[in-house]
Amino acid sequence: MVANPSLVLNKIDDISFETYEAPEITESNEVIVEVKKTGICGSDIHYYAHGKIGHFVLTKPMVLGHESSGIVTQIGSKVTSVKVGDKVAIEPGIPSRLSDAYKSGHYNLCPHMCFAATPNSTDGEPNPPGTLCKYFKSPEDFLVKLPDHVSLELGAMVEPLTVGVHASKLGSIRFGDKVAVFGAGPVGLLAAAAAKSFGAVAVIVIDIFDNKLQMAKDIGVATHTFNSKTGGDYKNLLKAFDDNEPTVVLECTGAEPCINTGVHILAQGGRFVQVGNAPGPVKFPITEFATKELTLFGSFRYGFNDYKTAVGILDTNYKNGKDKAPIDFEALITHRFSFNDAIKAYDLVRAGSGAVKCIIDGPE
Amino acid sequence: MVANPSLVLNKIDDISFETYEAPEITESNEVIVEVKKTGICGSDIHYYAHGKIGHFVLTKPMVLGHESSGIVTQIGSKVTSVKVGDKVAIEPGIPSRLSDAYKSGHYNLCPHMCFAATPNSTDGEPNPPGTLCKYFKSPEDFLVKLPDHVSLELGAMVEPLTVGVHASKLGSIRFGDKVAVFGAGPVGLLAAAAAKSFGAVAVIVIDIFDNKLQMAKDIGVATHTFNSKTGGDYKNLLKAFDDNEPTVVLECTGAEPCINTGVHILAQGGRFVQVGNAPGPVKFPITEFATKELTLFGSFRYGFNDYKTAVGILDTNYKNGKDKAPIDFEALITHRFSFNDAIKAYDLVRAGSGAVKCIIDGPE
Amino acid sequence: MVANPSLVLNKIDDISFETYEAPEITESNEVIVEVKKTGICGSDIHYYAHGKIGHFVLTKPMVLGHESSGIVTQIGSKVTSVKVGDKVAIEPGIPSRLSDAYKSGHYNLCPHMCFAATPNSTDGEPNPPGTLCKYFKSPEDFLVKLPDHVSLELGAMVEPLTVGVHASKLGSIRFGDKVAVFGAGPVGLLAAAAAKSFGAVAVIVIDIFDNKLQMAKDIGVATHTFNSKTGGDYKNLLKAFDDNEPTVVLECTGAEPCINTGVHILAQGGRFVQVGNAPGPVKFPITEFATKELTLFGSFRYGFNDYKTAVGILDTNYKNGKDKAPIDFEALITHRFSFNDAIKAYDLVRAGSGAVKCIIDGPE
Amino acid sequence: MVANPSLVLNKIDDISFETYEAPEITESNEVIVEVKKTGICGSDIHYYAHGKIGHFVLTKPMVLGHESSGIVTQIGSKVTSVKVGDKVAIEPGIPSRLSDAYKSGHYNLCPHMCFAATPNSTDGEPNPPGTLCKYFKSPEDFLVKLPDHVSLELGAMVEPLTVGVHASKLGSIRFGDKVAVFGAGPVGLLAAAAAKSFGAVAVIVIDIFDNKLQMAKDIGVATHTFNSKTGGDYKNLLKAFDDNEPTVVLECTGAEPCINTGVHILAQGGRFVQVGNAPGPVKFPITEFATKELTLFGSFRYGFNDYKTAVGILDTNYKNGKDKAPIDFEALITHRFSFNDAIKAYDLVRAGSGAVKCIIDGPE
Repeated sequence: MVANPSLVLNKIDDISFETYEAPEITESNEVIVEVKKTGICGSDIHYYAHGKIGHFVLTKPMVLGHESSGIVTQIGSKVTSVKVGDKVAIEPGIPSRLSDAYKSGHYNLCPHMCFAATPNSTDGEPNPPGTLCKYFKSPEDFLVKLPDHVSLELGAMVEPLTVGVHASKLGSIRFGDKVAVFGAGPVGLLAAAAAKSFGAVAVIVIDIFDNKLQMAKDIGVATHTFNSKTGGDYKNLLKAFDDNEPTVVLECTGAEPCINTGVHILAQGGRFVQVGNAPGPVKFPITEFATKELTLFGSFRYGFNDYKTAVGILDTNYKNGKDKAPIDFEALITHRFSFNDAIKAYDLVRAGSGAVKCIIDGPE
Repeated sequence: MVANPSLVLNKIDDISFETYEAPEITESNEVIVEVKKTGICGSDIHYYAHGKIGHFVLTKPMVLGHESSGIVTQIGSKVTSVKVGDKVAIEPGIPSRLSDAYKSGHYNLCPHMCFAATPNSTDGEPNPPGTLCKYFKSPEDFLVKLPDHVSLELGAMVEPLTVGVHASKLGSIRFGDKVAVFGAGPVGLLAAAAAKSFGAVAVIVIDIFDNKLQMAKDIGVATHTFNSKTGGDYKNLLKAFDDNEPTVVLECTGAEPCINTGVHILAQGGRFVQVGNAPGPVKFPITEFATKELTLFGSFRYGFNDYKTAVGILDTNYKNGKDKAPIDFEALITHRFSFNDAIKAYDLVRAGSGAVKCIIDGPE
Repeated sequence: MVANPSLVLNKIDDISFETYEAPEITESNEVIVEVKKTGICGSDIHYYAHGKIGHFVLTKPMVLGHESSGIVTQIGSKVTSVKVGDKVAIEPGIPSRLSDAYKSGHYNLCPHMCFAATPNSTDGEPNPPGTLCKYFKSPEDFLVKLPDHVSLELGAMVEPLTVGVHASKLGSIRFGDKVAVFGAGPVGLLAAAAAKSFGAVAVIVIDIFDNKLQMAKDIGVATHTFNSKTGGDYKNLLKAFDDNEPTVVLECTGAEPCINTGVHILAQGGRFVQVGNAPGPVKFPITEFATKELTLFGSFRYGFNDYKTAVGILDTNYKNGKDKAPIDFEALITHRFSFNDAIKAYDLVRAGSGAVKCIIDGPE
Repeated sequence: MVANPSLVLNKIDDISFETYEAPEITESNEVIVEVKKTGICGSDIHYYAHGKIGHFVLTKPMVLGHESSGIVTQIGSKVTSVKVGDKVAIEPGIPSRLSDAYKSGHYNLCPHMCFAATPNSTDGEPNPPGTLCKYFKSPEDFLVKLPDHVSLELGAMVEPLTVGVHASKLGSIRFGDKVAVFGAGPVGLLAAAAAKSFGAVAVIVIDIFDNKLQMAKDIGVATHTFNSKTGGDYKNLLKAFDDNEPTVVLECTGAEPCINTGVHILAQGGRFVQVGNAPGPVKFPITEFATKELTLFGSFRYGFNDYKTAVGILDTNYKNGKDKAPIDFEALITHRFSFNDAIKAYDLVRAGSGAVKCIIDGPE
């Protein structure tokens, strides 16, 4: 038996270190990864503070973490895409191979999804294992090899970057698009990075904190920014965007005013991708929406090939070295913790003290 | 000079008969049509009662009518697609040929649209002429010839049917789709007819009046119906649809409860087409929408080829004679008036006394 | 042990009856079907006469048959979509659940496809079992329940009908399209049936045999026909189609002259779907193709939901009884044989003596 | 009267300088441009040497040139998008505003297209004016303003770049695609530039001349190259592309071996865009094409917004100055001539002496 130190959310306000038995390969397509870097996601904090998100309710202890990278330590007999020693990004949600959603190419909609660190409250089964542990098991096709010049830390950002990739694909962003991104937290900034990689020629990032907007410019994802608290109404926003009506909106806040502003500013025939969650229904200007023949795409997690695309973005960005990288993804990592200090990391992020992305090392 | 008797809305509550000068052909692609049948649209009534719809405000007298058919009486020198004596359906909105909207294939979004019986309040120009007159001038490509077996009365229903055609195209309805249509007024019923023609294998029509729902079944557009006032919640609706989760919603009411129910019942990955106008913003379950990766298409009027498709639906429906027609479009015409009684017709519809579609003859 | 009488192609010109052990359920999603009706496909005959199709080479005995329907006799523990006694159509190709093709929603392109009665010559594994036997095992999601009013014989035609469904989906056929179908064999006729069900308002079927063209009209799938041997060139073809330039071509012959004629007659911007196989490269008018901005879709077998759509076509067609069915699918069945006479059936079809579709009963 | 010195192709082998009357503004949306830079296109040379291309036959003198930029000297009364003094790229083909092709958003397919320097042999009308003159008249919406940092010389390359833009849009190229471009002449190199701008992460350019392949690398559009004359077969090509199966092929030669190789190397489900013209039909591996479910898009000239996109590519490329431009478009210009030496320029290009792009100044 191999020990598997893990960070466990027992219930609201209660995180502890536990040691479980490490997973073993039982299918020929499985891989064991030693987890090296894990980002903290807003959803982790939400479970920590509230014990639930929507109908996902924590009813038993759950290993935390789903934004991770690591190194392959063992592979099943038929695994060909990775080998022991490879650096990999871990895609954390495994759908049912038999579901219609999977079969149709939209596995993110699989009703039997087993998603790391997302409670399985309904049917008495154990919670899906999180990645904040030493050894994590995955089918090979849910691992993506990292290029040499993409670090494990960057690999831990593949998961939230993939959220932006999926949204950019839904919004069919391509060369020439002008994109407005609402929200300058990690998801918004990475969505802006994806939009830029997909060919957006102008990206305006909107938020209510100037320091976040500054980061959007500094890391190279925003060509324009707008403070929606202090900057005025949607007409001012358009002025700040050099009078460009965006062709695509990536809405990453779920906030009613942002959603409404997004509809107001979109060009006729434009595409609106809803990425952020709203706590409840929002007032929505549906007649304006219809009159301009806009299209609204609901975006949920990510699906086929999105993880590979996200790794491709990092690959392309860093291929000429860090100095020449157009986007400074690493600047998003504002805090780093050892595994032993993981609870401190959670408390820091929970306290809202300005962390953008906080990365926790894997257990030694 | 040729006299052109016309029905004119002067201001709120004030309709009169006026005689203007008939239009003359000045461009080689123009056609004069003697108007024979005109349907009354809800928007006509709205201008009659309220003097405005959204930012369209009536500030000077306007000839009413935009749902018309007629007979060609004169053609310009380069007209080839129709000839004198042809029965035609009249498409009432003429966009600017130079606009980007037109050039891109989406002329319904043209900012310079000249739409019959829609006030032009902003810039001092005359109102676009309506079709409730004897002679109406149109470019040839905004007329569609009616087949022999499609009557002029049916021709007057092409306009609202085209609204349903456009929505069905936006929703990519094709064989196998299961469609929920909210609203059993003329637009809803004709949208259901379009959906059926586009291959929907099951169509549930939802309304709050049993007699309208009965008509939806009687005329052959609904396979299922549901009274949303008396029938219970969305779960009951799904039961009434034999537990089919619709793949497409055509929302033709603009009512907040309908919009919300539409989102609840749609299958994952489903398409929601907003056809109806809402008087203001509506509470919208955007997170449920996103989680199911639904797509919302705003639908505004109609565009390239939609009128021809609508005439094609009537053509196909009646090709084996009225007795074998799968859909009884004529049953929608509940009232008929001579031109001299046109004001009575408007008052009848305005009174809301159960008329579905009211058709007014052209002037003698 | 349960006996499984089977029809086996041993090698070229050598078919025999053999009895194997019946399959047993080993996975919880598996179903045993007692095969009742099986159609003979051109590919079966090709293996019989030539021992190979392209790189599929027969190197060991193979149970024939892949166009079958039957009755469920046993179900695995987690099966929910069918129950014992249900009539089902059997989808004969099972892809790898782990392949990228499957994961992306295009399982017909799976390189590890296990397709009934298609030789597995390359890697020493047994041939995939055919359906011309008493008991056939399938995962539940590759069975589609037949409605009460769709017979088992019709169920045996679902497979070739699905080929037409897939092509119609690739060609985005919808209401209003005008479709030219090359080839009036079973695949062409069923492709025309699919096109009509998808909303084609005019369908011209082209072949070199008048009796086949007559059948295309008689069974209700062709509005127009053209004999390309005796009828003249493509201009005559267009005349025979009432001067309609088709918007879609479904090419079901693989014959060079048909492919070229298809390109000549297509309307600008039209869609060309290649369904038939050509024995080698064909001369192709690629500059005419490019100048008209046509699109060519290669169509291979069928994929997600296509089988369900095909059963839906039969369901809709027969919902008001055989007498009112718009398309007479049963007329395609020109010959019927008992299982004991199956070899005679193969010889008859191989002799090319005018059979359209020949159906063999399952073993008693 | 204003003099308009022009370069005129009278008939095969016969070019002369002529002076015509300069065009005058007669419509409110028209603009007069003083032409400053014009590229020589292969089609110009073809008319010079052969007097025709396909069904376009030179039967009367024709002003040459259709790849031009210039400076606005006069504008019609309603022109708003450009002003006197603006640098502009000239889109040389003006479709009929009334055609269905235009109305549907595909004006490149307009049968009444009036395309600069393309003979109008069929109906006795004059040839469309070419751009190799001093003053050229255009509707404002067929001019695109050049940014300050995009030179007039670069503006003369917008036309052939737009061919690549249109092909890249048809092929839906976006981030992550791996693209094979056949042909390293100006069209192929600019198509590769467009593909790269649209997000291709790997681009292999294939030609039979090493110096052209070297240029593809040197100017920054190719990540890989392959000499198809000396490099071996398609398997070698794949090796040269690091075993990447391309997801998109842009075929810019029209050569049968290239087209066949393109089909062989494409990944399953891949997209093949035919840009180059073939002198006649080509042998085409249609069954391989169908079995892999490829899609072939015929690409003809360019349409809505493509010119703006091409200018956008130049804008983005040069926004940080020439030194930091990722693609060196200017290196394509290998020869420059004054207007007085224009005939020499044509003879040079016709002689095939290694010119890539030859630019002729406008008349003084």
